[in-house]
Amino acid sequence: MSKIPVLEIFGPTVQGEGMAIGQKTMFIRTAGCDYSCSWCDSSFTWDGSEKENINWMTAEDVWNRLVELGGDTFSHITISGGNPALLPSLGPIVDFLKDKQMTLALETQGSKWQTWLPLIDEVTLSPKPPSSGMNTDFDVLTNIIQQLEHHPKTCLKVVIFDEKDLAFAETVHQKFPQIPFFLQVGNSWLNADDGSLLQHMLNRYEWLIDETMKSKVFKNVKVLPQLHAFVWGNKRGV
Amino acid sequence: MSKIPVLEIFGPTVQGEGMAIGQKTMFIRTAGCDYSCSWCDSSFTWDGSEKENINWMTAEDVWNRLVELGGDTFSHITISGGNPALLPSLGPIVDFLKDKQMTLALETQGSKWQTWLPLIDEVTLSPKPPSSGMNTDFDVLTNIIQQLEHHPKTCLKVVIFDEKDLAFAETVHQKFPQIPFFLQVGNSWLNADDGSLLQHMLNRYEWLIDETMKSKVFKNVKVLPQLHAFVWGNKRGV
Ligand code: SF4
Ligand code: SF4
Repeated sequence: MSKIPVLEIFGPTVQGEGMAIGQKTMFIRTAGCDYSCSWCDSSFTWDGSEKENINWMTAEDVWNRLVELGGDTFSHITISGGNPALLPSLGPIVDFLKDKQMTLALETQGSKWQTWLPLIDEVTLSPKPPSSGMNTDFDVLTNIIQQLEHHPKTCLKVVIFDEKDLAFAETVHQKFPQIPFFLQVGNSWLNADDGSLLQHMLNRYEWLIDETMKSKVFKNVKVLPQLHAFVWGNKRGV
Repeated sequence: MSKIPVLEIFGPTVQGEGMAIGQKTMFIRTAGCDYSCSWCDSSFTWDGSEKENINWMTAEDVWNRLVELGGDTFSHITISGGNPALLPSLGPIVDFLKDKQMTLALETQGSKWQTWLPLIDEVTLSPKPPSSGMNTDFDVLTNIIQQLEHHPKTCLKVVIFDEKDLAFAETVHQKFPQIPFFLQVGNSWLNADDGSLLQHMLNRYEWLIDETMKSKVFKNVKVLPQLHAFVWGNKRGV
């Protein structure tokens, strides 16, 4: 029986960012990442600090836990990480959840292809900008985007901390102009208290809006903050 | 030459709500409404208070003003009101803007049909809940939704102030389960200062999230605040 390493299952809650912002959804967070972004807000999925909390779960285990938490109140599930696209074994679980008529969303940095990716209803590809310290392999990303060409809901999302990140985002948008494009405010104040975090996030959002409004490259794009950080600060599992 | 009554043209800015939340866009606000919602946040479009500011503009007037403000930085335009669907004369202007390769979004309460509606790329139908004091004519709304059946981006949005509004929203969602559905936090503190408005909005958003999470009717829906009120309070023209 195919199993995946799960670190958290929670919900129903609201997706706070990207193409499905505001969406009522359940979250499945898988363990493991091939990146180590400097500002990763879920480094516990890959830095070993929560190794002992990893649960190896079958499709049925996952489904039972979802129903235990969400009862009969949900039909949308978000698979997040870490990088869930590291897991070939996610395929049977995706099949299982589609059989249950669920709408599935997934986020990955776009560093690995999996044959089950086209079965995901909403695919967010989020290549990491220079401030992360990571390098994007554009051959792999291009190949993924080509394979998802006729997929109705694929989008690109780039998190922005500074001007260099903005320049990177322009490059990505120009390479793939046909893919809906999201700019997202970086959340670097992981240890701030909620009040100052909120004000900081609003200031950074206003800065990102101003930059985007001036740009001739970013015409038909969306600029968003992390809405969940407004509501819940940096709390986990909400 | 066909003209429309315009009260404001501004942008580029960010759409703060609904299906295009975060979208970089230009705004055209038309004058006139067939409703008079108790909590209308743009009553100046229909209560006579800004009658002398109404500008009757041709398509070319509108386009020139857009370019004057936005230069070469935009390709998305939002037509808002009042109720822009009151205006048969909007048709030639829609044609003109589509010829310019613009993506068009429009919001209406869904009380009037216009033959140009299918030419709008993103149509938001926002029937008004009981707290507005208005009554929805469901025959008209149903007819509009049927005519837009094969339109790729039609959505329903209901603003929520209280439990009765929530019950109304459930009814609407159940009548049209196939149409993407948005619940939006009502903004009733028009005269609050920005700090208390923000805290109030966050509290109301959290309340609406809680109610939606419990619901078995609202499964695959989105719950959103008015993001622009977070950033700019109740300022106009941003
Ligand atoms: S790709 Fe995502 S999960 Fe992996 S290190 Fe970067 S931010 Fe963290
Ligand atoms: S339909 Fe919209 S513009 Fe008209 S009165 Fe109601 S809120 Fe105001």
